[in-house]
Amino acid sequence: MKVNRNFDNLVPNYLFAEIAKRVNEYCSANPDKKVIKLGIGDVTLPLPKIAVEALKKGADDLGNKETFKGYPDYEGYEFVRKAVSDYYNTFGVKVDPSEILITDGAKSDSGNIGDIFDKDNTVLVTDPVYPVYVDSNIMAGRKIIYADSNESNGFCAMPNEDVKADIIYLCSPNNPTGSAYSYDQLKTWVDYANKNDAIIIFDAAYEAFITDDSPRSIFAVEGARTCAIELCSLSKTAGFTGTRCGYTIIPKELERDGKNIYKLWYRREATKFNGVSWPVQCAAAAVLSEEGQKEFKENISYYQENAKIIASAMDELGIYYTGGKNSPYIWLKCPNGMGSWEFFDYLLENANVVGTPGEGFGKNGEGYFRLTSFGDRENTIEAVRRIKELLSK
Amino acid sequence: MKVNRNFDNLVPNYLFAEIAKRVNEYCSANPDKKVIKLGIGDVTLPLPKIAVEALKKGADDLGNKETFKGYPDYEGYEFVRKAVSDYYNTFGVKVDPSEILITDGAKSDSGNIGDIFDKDNTVLVTDPVYPVYVDSNIMAGRKIIYADSNESNGFCAMPNEDVKADIIYLCSPNNPTGSAYSYDQLKTWVDYANKNDAIIIFDAAYEAFITDDSPRSIFAVEGARTCAIELCSLSKTAGFTGTRCGYTIIPKELERDGKNIYKLWYRREATKFNGVSWPVQCAAAAVLSEEGQKEFKENISYYQENAKIIASAMDELGIYYTGGKNSPYIWLKCPNGMGSWEFFDYLLENANVVGTPGEGFGKNGEGYFRLTSFGDRENTIEAVRRIKELLSK
Repeated sequence: MKVNRNFDNLVPNYLFAEIAKRVNEYCSANPDKKVIKLGIGDVTLPLPKIAVEALKKGADDLGNKETFKGYPDYEGYEFVRKAVSDYYNTFGVKVDPSEILITDGAKSDSGNIGDIFDKDNTVLVTDPVYPVYVDSNIMAGRKIIYADSNESNGFCAMPNEDVKADIIYLCSPNNPTGSAYSYDQLKTWVDYANKNDAIIIFDAAYEAFITDDSPRSIFAVEGARTCAIELCSLSKTAGFTGTRCGYTIIPKELERDGKNIYKLWYRREATKFNGVSWPVQCAAAAVLSEEGQKEFKENISYYQENAKIIASAMDELGIYYTGGKNSPYIWLKCPNGMGSWEFFDYLLENANVVGTPGEGFGKNGEGYFRLTSFGDRENTIEAVRRIKELLSK
Repeated sequence: MKVNRNFDNLVPNYLFAEIAKRVNEYCSANPDKKVIKLGIGDVTLPLPKIAVEALKKGADDLGNKETFKGYPDYEGYEFVRKAVSDYYNTFGVKVDPSEILITDGAKSDSGNIGDIFDKDNTVLVTDPVYPVYVDSNIMAGRKIIYADSNESNGFCAMPNEDVKADIIYLCSPNNPTGSAYSYDQLKTWVDYANKNDAIIIFDAAYEAFITDDSPRSIFAVEGARTCAIELCSLSKTAGFTGTRCGYTIIPKELERDGKNIYKLWYRREATKFNGVSWPVQCAAAAVLSEEGQKEFKENISYYQENAKIIASAMDELGIYYTGGKNSPYIWLKCPNGMGSWEFFDYLLENANVVGTPGEGFGKNGEGYFRLTSFGDRENTIEAVRRIKELLSK
């Protein structure tokens, strides 16, 4: 009996545990200080009312013999897939409901999608990176290579034509850097993938935060249907982090190694997943309706205003940053050459503000720092006031 | 770019598609016939009221800023794990909440648990078998060996001491045969696993249907804590097939290959899963409460009475069968030496009753047939009347 020894190669990620430890120690030693947390990557506003009502209606359905629902369709109910398709239409992207699979979230999908690919593929991730892309491929024993996101490319890593990758994870708007690829940049990636017979796994979890003409879906880019899988989720779009619903989109024509990729993923999901709860699917369809979109866009606007407040302060302070415009994240360069953890402690002790050290997301995160706009307005304003006061000294 | 070619080794399972096709053809040709379906493996009674109320309360929590819930704990909320632990206490099995992980169901778990084991382990399944155990291990490229369940052992396959297996899937009460292992039989498996350094993955999804002293958990068996993982679900226990909640139990002391198995599974889940919806976790805790148990036991009793009606008919007809007593399934030998599909057609055409041909579950299913007690009472009685009339001719 052998366990999967690839797990030995995982780097224990104590980032958030270490943050919690330092914050707790500071608070214990300074009980009078009001610490504001802008490190959190989780939403805080309540679920749109229309989603709450749909959840409750769905629960009632389950309580009546006539409307009871048992096992859902593996790919999700047709009306939910239709709602996703309609939503994509609102920003000009055509995907057929038959190309959509409803899942419990983009994290599960970005981890599980690897099941359909051979171990002997080279995986490319951009660095800094959402750790799930790396860890799930380490577990699978795949070779991972890195494309650097840094100040010189505005934290938008681009392909190196001399390097061959088979599976490419892109996240735009990016977690953690908040940067969003332009159409032309994504087109370069799509061309690279098509030329190299690679597949792009495109994580669009933050698409709803885009305010400019950056593509909200990889399928807005010409050529993407022959090289890309899109993962998305309602977690950040509609506050579903505790409700759990996402979706994968795989164009019917996407093939590699003589196989249809949608069919492989469907087979994987039909075998190792049993679908999403009926009330949750009802809630997903509800928030994607016209009325639902209005509601969740109010929440997005609230976070965007927070982001603007933080970003404006960085502008005033002359601090380099990405994000804030198309993203709830502001990724800033630590002032005065400070390291990530050094700046963390400095900010905690002198402004009583908590953020996330960038080096937790990869080597290009060293010397950078992430603030998020998911807090409430009053705290965000107060945190920014303290940061400005501290750093303009 | 290579896809996972192990998928090529999957046998397309058209069992339920083929059933649907034959039923549809028959119904189209005979629109006046009232066909009764006893093939379904899904529950039909509504969710317990206490679960519906908890889902709605959970939805309301999500709708208010003060009670809103974001990302759940990876291992599930403590009060839910405590509820599972308390429930196990009611049948005399001690498991600590810290040994429990809340998941979206036993199917996902039985598929995903393989991630923590090396590819080069030999997997043993009993045949007939729930196809997920086989298919998920084919996808992973593992060698699979079979232990025969058949009439000579009452469809309770036992280990062969001369054969070495590393990972053993047991399901008791069994899907599809309805047979439940006795304490002594499970003890033999546990001893075999401990002696061979193997791990038993024990699927207890049907434990709530047990009426005699068969163990309801592998952890009722001495020695299991050093060789077993238990998967269970509320799908059949409390009608959660469309609500989606299950749990895995891994004793803290379970180690293999120098590694703690709970920690590996936690790491897998923390990386590739993001927990269960807040309202669903609330509903899970509610049905596992004392009042909730009373409610779901009424539903179980209803299905058990159906099972008794079907089993009594088999007794009257002198047909060999397993199940019915500790299970919603009645697994019967096709009369007069008929094959599974032959009997399927015979029953459909002459009694207008639909069941499931046993050969869809493996070679030992040839010549056997599954009926389920998940239908409603009136239809079950009428189906049994027709079967008796037909077969006693």
